[in-house]
Amino acid sequence: MGEISQQELQLATRNHGMPLELLREPLTPLGLHYLLVHYDVPAVDEDVWRLAVGGRVAREQTLSLAELQALPAVSLAVTMECAGNGRALLEPRAVSQPWLTEAVGTAEWTGTPLRGVLERAGLAADAVEVLFTGLDRGMEGGVEQSYERALPVAEALRDDVLLAYAIGGRPLAPQHGFPLRLVVPGWYGMTNVKWLGRITVLDEPFAGYQHTRSYRMRQAEDDEGEPVTRMLPRSLMVPPGIPDFLSRERFLEPGTAVLRGRAWSGWAPIESVEVSTDGGRGWAPAELEEPVSPAAWRGWSFAWEASAGRHELCCRASDADGRSQPVDPRWNLGGYANNSVQRVVVNVSASRLGGADR
Amino acid sequence: MGEISQQELQLATRNHGMPLELLREPLTPLGLHYLLVHYDVPAVDEDVWRLAVGGRVAREQTLSLAELQALPAVSLAVTMECAGNGRALLEPRAVSQPWLTEAVGTAEWTGTPLRGVLERAGLAADAVEVLFTGLDRGMEGGVEQSYERALPVAEALRDDVLLAYAIGGRPLAPQHGFPLRLVVPGWYGMTNVKWLGRITVLDEPFAGYQHTRSYRMRQAEDDEGEPVTRMLPRSLMVPPGIPDFLSRERFLEPGTAVLRGRAWSGWAPIESVEVSTDGGRGWAPAELEEPVSPAAWRGWSFAWEASAGRHELCCRASDADGRSQPVDPRWNLGGYANNSVQRVVVNVSASRLGGADR
Repeated sequence: MGEISQQELQLATRNHGMPLELLREPLTPLGLHYLLVHYDVPAVDEDVWRLAVGGRVAREQTLSLAELQALPAVSLAVTMECAGNGRALLEPRAVSQPWLTEAVGTAEWTGTPLRGVLERAGLAADAVEVLFTGLDRGMEGGVEQSYERALPVAEALRDDVLLAYAIGGRPLAPQHGFPLRLVVPGWYGMTNVKWLGRITVLDEPFAGYQHTRSYRMRQAEDDEGEPVTRMLPRSLMVPPGIPDFLSRERFLEPGTAVLRGRAWSGWAPIESVEVSTDGGRGWAPAELEEPVSPAAWRGWSFAWEASAGRHELCCRASDADGRSQPVDPRWNLGGYANNSVQRVVVNVSASRLGGADR
Repeated sequence: MGEISQQELQLATRNHGMPLELLREPLTPLGLHYLLVHYDVPAVDEDVWRLAVGGRVAREQTLSLAELQALPAVSLAVTMECAGNGRALLEPRAVSQPWLTEAVGTAEWTGTPLRGVLERAGLAADAVEVLFTGLDRGMEGGVEQSYERALPVAEALRDDVLLAYAIGGRPLAPQHGFPLRLVVPGWYGMTNVKWLGRITVLDEPFAGYQHTRSYRMRQAEDDEGEPVTRMLPRSLMVPPGIPDFLSRERFLEPGTAVLRGRAWSGWAPIESVEVSTDGGRGWAPAELEEPVSPAAWRGWSFAWEASAGRHELCCRASDADGRSQPVDPRWNLGGYANNSVQRVVVNVSASRLGGADR
């Protein structure tokens, strides 16, 4: 991996991943869920705020937060991952938020199904996509814009797509989209538009910046590419032992170490997780737990007989559709969806290096 | 500023600063306060956890969380800043967490004064320092250690030094030191030991890693240097207008823009804040608000007549002891306490660049 530029650093100090030891928790504590904010976190006055629903609908809607909260409510634990997770492991890579592997989190979101709001508005027969516009505004690639992303109508009408006004049973934190955000289980994070202001039903595919310029799997600038949509399978482990502050290499005593982690896929249920303790040459199956929810990650564990030496641990998940994680990254121009296997270096020794502790 | 290494990036994706637009809030919302974790966030079982108080005391103590919560409680809004804030603006710089200027936050902490617990234990006549040992453990500079820092007895007995078990009226978040942390108003963040396990009263100055190797103002490796203690004055502004995603440069329409920010010093009350709209050549005074608390930052505002063009905005604070912020960074080996003035580039134009919005 090469050096990181000042522009990337400016993003890395604002945004943050989930420290991987928090994989021990089925639900990520508030403040530790990964966070990516394209522009600024907007200040929203809940009393003045309204959600507008328009475009190709029979009855335009203007809904207050209280009106949304009076609609049927659903709570669902959802694993959410940034489409750029793994970007900084690509070489060369797009200049953007330089994630290693930690851009993930699982939260219980509470909201009302989008479907109910769309049915109340009445989709026109020619509706093809639903556009979600956030209140966050900025410049990107020379274009001034509000952050906005669209979903095909079939996805927007899924029962588990929520207009969420709570996280972990409390009002949305400002950084997670207060007062309302979209939550689309299975899709990468960019789909889950925060600080929702407007929903517009479209009779043609949306061609905005975040669809045509960003979030496409491309090999070259003039390549049209495929849109980034659902999360590819990924498994991550809690790094065992104790860390070195700088290198983040791990230190562990010999003996049985139970490795633990979590795995998810936006395409199909996770079917297996394998662990390698020799840098990806040999693999053995991990034990799987039940998923935290139908939309959330699945815990796994693996008993490792740690012998003295320096070991590179890896894990990889496969889903029921046959998708798995590559050992080496698959490059693309935007640095999206790099789900290559995690690598954790562990130094096993009976007397820890420099073990001078009070 | 030079490029950032992989080791620095590993820290920057785990830890995070406060996005500067959140300076608008007197109290930083949970999850947006800056965070620096040396090792891992430890998992602590509140039912098993106890605080041990020993060393040069008359009566050793073992206190449960419930026992600590039954002692007199104080709530105090405290501005806390990382000693490494500004490090990435130094050249060359120590390889460590590469902060720009955002490693700050203000929270309302609730706890019991440390003084009461020390008086209960009874300090020996020869007590000179009080050592605070966290439950977080790791390697640093080749030395295995629990994170620990000491305070001179006179500081430890200040009325406003807290053993805090709540933030924003709720139990401490895991990343902020659950179940108990030290809070020392005025001192840089490294003082505020998280995940407290043990308090040890010492009859000589503590010579551990975080005092003798880290957190010293040095010009060279063989320089003994001075310890890093209290926060130097700093002022930061909410970047006005809207940002560019990558460069974080700002875009604004011409006219009156009210610049707002906050300022603090760990040495003395803030007495003035000045603003420059020409990169630090000319300065004019800002209007000051009352501090959020005696231990917290002070808001300020400045009406700027923004004319078309590219402007570099700066702000600088001075405290009642005559300390101020330098226009250029003062270099030191560890990259500590760089309180040089913030610089925000704003592009003012009537028709915004590429203003193609739907």
